[in-house]
Amino acid sequence: MNHKLRQQKLQRELEQSRLNAVLITSLPNIRYLCGFTGSAAALLVSKSQSIFFTDGRYITQAQTEVHGSRIVVGRKAPLISAAEWFRGKAKCPGAPGKFTLGIEAEHLTVVDRQRLARSLALSVRLGVASPWVEKARILKDADEIKSIRAAVLLGAGLFEVVLKTIGPGVRETEVAAELEYAARRAGAESMSFETIIASGPRSALPHGRASTAPIPSRGFVVCDFGVILAGYCSDMTRTVHVGRPTVEARRTYEAVREAQQAAVATVKPGVSLSEVDGAARNVLKRHGLGRYFTHSTGHGVGLEIHEAPRVAKGQNELLQPGMVITIEPGVYIPGKCGVRIEDMVVVTDRGCEILTPTGKEMIAV
Amino acid sequence: MNHKLRQQKLQRELEQSRLNAVLITSLPNIRYLCGFTGSAAALLVSKSQSIFFTDGRYITQAQTEVHGSRIVVGRKAPLISAAEWFRGKAKCPGAPGKFTLGIEAEHLTVVDRQRLARSLALSVRLGVASPWVEKARILKDADEIKSIRAAVLLGAGLFEVVLKTIGPGVRETEVAAELEYAARRAGAESMSFETIIASGPRSALPHGRASTAPIPSRGFVVCDFGVILAGYCSDMTRTVHVGRPTVEARRTYEAVREAQQAAVATVKPGVSLSEVDGAARNVLKRHGLGRYFTHSTGHGVGLEIHEAPRVAKGQNELLQPGMVITIEPGVYIPGKCGVRIEDMVVVTDRGCEILTPTGKEMIAV
Repeated sequence: MNHKLRQQKLQRELEQSRLNAVLITSLPNIRYLCGFTGSAAALLVSKSQSIFFTDGRYITQAQTEVHGSRIVVGRKAPLISAAEWFRGKAKCPGAPGKFTLGIEAEHLTVVDRQRLARSLALSVRLGVASPWVEKARILKDADEIKSIRAAVLLGAGLFEVVLKTIGPGVRETEVAAELEYAARRAGAESMSFETIIASGPRSALPHGRASTAPIPSRGFVVCDFGVILAGYCSDMTRTVHVGRPTVEARRTYEAVREAQQAAVATVKPGVSLSEVDGAARNVLKRHGLGRYFTHSTGHGVGLEIHEAPRVAKGQNELLQPGMVITIEPGVYIPGKCGVRIEDMVVVTDRGCEILTPTGKEMIAV
Repeated sequence: MNHKLRQQKLQRELEQSRLNAVLITSLPNIRYLCGFTGSAAALLVSKSQSIFFTDGRYITQAQTEVHGSRIVVGRKAPLISAAEWFRGKAKCPGAPGKFTLGIEAEHLTVVDRQRLARSLALSVRLGVASPWVEKARILKDADEIKSIRAAVLLGAGLFEVVLKTIGPGVRETEVAAELEYAARRAGAESMSFETIIASGPRSALPHGRASTAPIPSRGFVVCDFGVILAGYCSDMTRTVHVGRPTVEARRTYEAVREAQQAAVATVKPGVSLSEVDGAARNVLKRHGLGRYFTHSTGHGVGLEIHEAPRVAKGQNELLQPGMVITIEPGVYIPGKCGVRIEDMVVVTDRGCEILTPTGKEMIAV
């Protein structure tokens, strides 16, 4: 990961903007730009400088992790340390009289913006920075794709554990326990989100975190899980059927599978995100299931489990090589059942590569 | 959990303020007020009404979980659904001409504030709400203390697993794996934060998440972990020594233990948070270790792992019965070693009760 290069790219964006500097406060953005993985940080990037602020708990960690920035350890919250450092500079002879500092308006709270404004010198104005870092993060470089691939493979290996564990009467949390244990044993830093094991009527909850409910003797179990490895996330969903599926259950499953594959088949540079979403949606509509597909088709994945872009209606941005997205249509019939199938794919020069190696045939256990 | 009562308390606060309604967007605050545990929600509370907004993914879950509020399922983000619903009302005859809607400025981002302002009717002004819900959450009711107690006991039981697992050459992540597996098997929803297993020189990192580093044959291992059970968090730290401790290591450990116990001994209603912090800090200063105690003494715990109040210098708020806080002084000698000992305590009518049942004697494995 060439952090210096990433910061230089941000500095070039700054040069073409009306801002003199930008204060990065989103932790994933900070990690992307300088490598710091802790929980208290602010990164001040001007056209010529990069200064990293943290607090006393992170002295040693900052020295090990931070690249391409000078490190300042303050006694206050990093945001305020940055403002006060800045105020000190503004008093120096030769400092600019009118200075505009960009904030990350998507990440800074209303209160932190007020605190920052109060701590800055009067000669400093606050402006809103473009989401330059989020935009840069959409296109993964070779190092990042390698990291994501490793996370996806580790994650996919866990599906074996799911299959071994799932059965009538087993609690959803037990399946999650075995899965997460195997993840840790395999070296995962943590799960990338709360594991979803949703069985029986709970499968109709798109976000049904594993509960203490026992798995019924017949019905779908939606299993949605991912790991973090070297900072990068994986995300996959498979839906398993316990007991013998009814004809209707089989039809529902196959409709979702068809929708998922239709969406994947559209993924290539130049196609819009909404077209990918539409491909999945049209299949489900054709099967009379359109109204049960209540979320968007996918999202970007990288340092965060949900990041730009969104694969959804109205998203007219075009796919580009290096984007890593999920394709995850689902059908949720309230009180009855749900099915979701999700892969991660990377957009290549000519099409895409499905990163998730796991089969999608209906499995009855 | 009497959600209706909590909302009524908020409505009484509203009545005494210049706000006509408040839009709650902090998820833990929403959970506290109405019981919803999902990830997309906004709760609009006026003097006479309570309306809960979510999106299509959470229809079924909202119907099961939400108490004391009318449920509105929108097609847009809950924040915008709330604004548009509100705009609809403002057009009705009899609606107030000038209306001030309070936001949670500590939680709403600058961009979301702008989005909200744009989606509201012109007759609605935005104001900043006091942190009423956070304040209410500081004092735990009997139900909450019961839930916290259960989480703490589950968490404390995991220390046995740590002791069985820790040893020279074992990777920190393996200890975390066994710990988290046991947590899940025991019914924990998830860990309350990323498990810290920090051995050898890494023990000097106050936030040393378990890494793939093998535990050295001699030195401290800081183990800081917690679980979530029925929504409530636990948090504890014990520091174990691998191999025979040196005289200096033993002295450092005993100084931290003395500091921790001195702080706990001060906890009773009417004592200020800064006095509790000072009690720990003074002991470490006396042992010449003051400058190595680089964080505050503790924090509130409840639905969130870190919540109000802060047990720190300059915090003049007084302890009251029903507060649940951590007491966790530590010493971190960069590049060398670290020790932290942490209990959770609940403030009672006359003093406090230590919730964490685990012994604090130095353990060498």
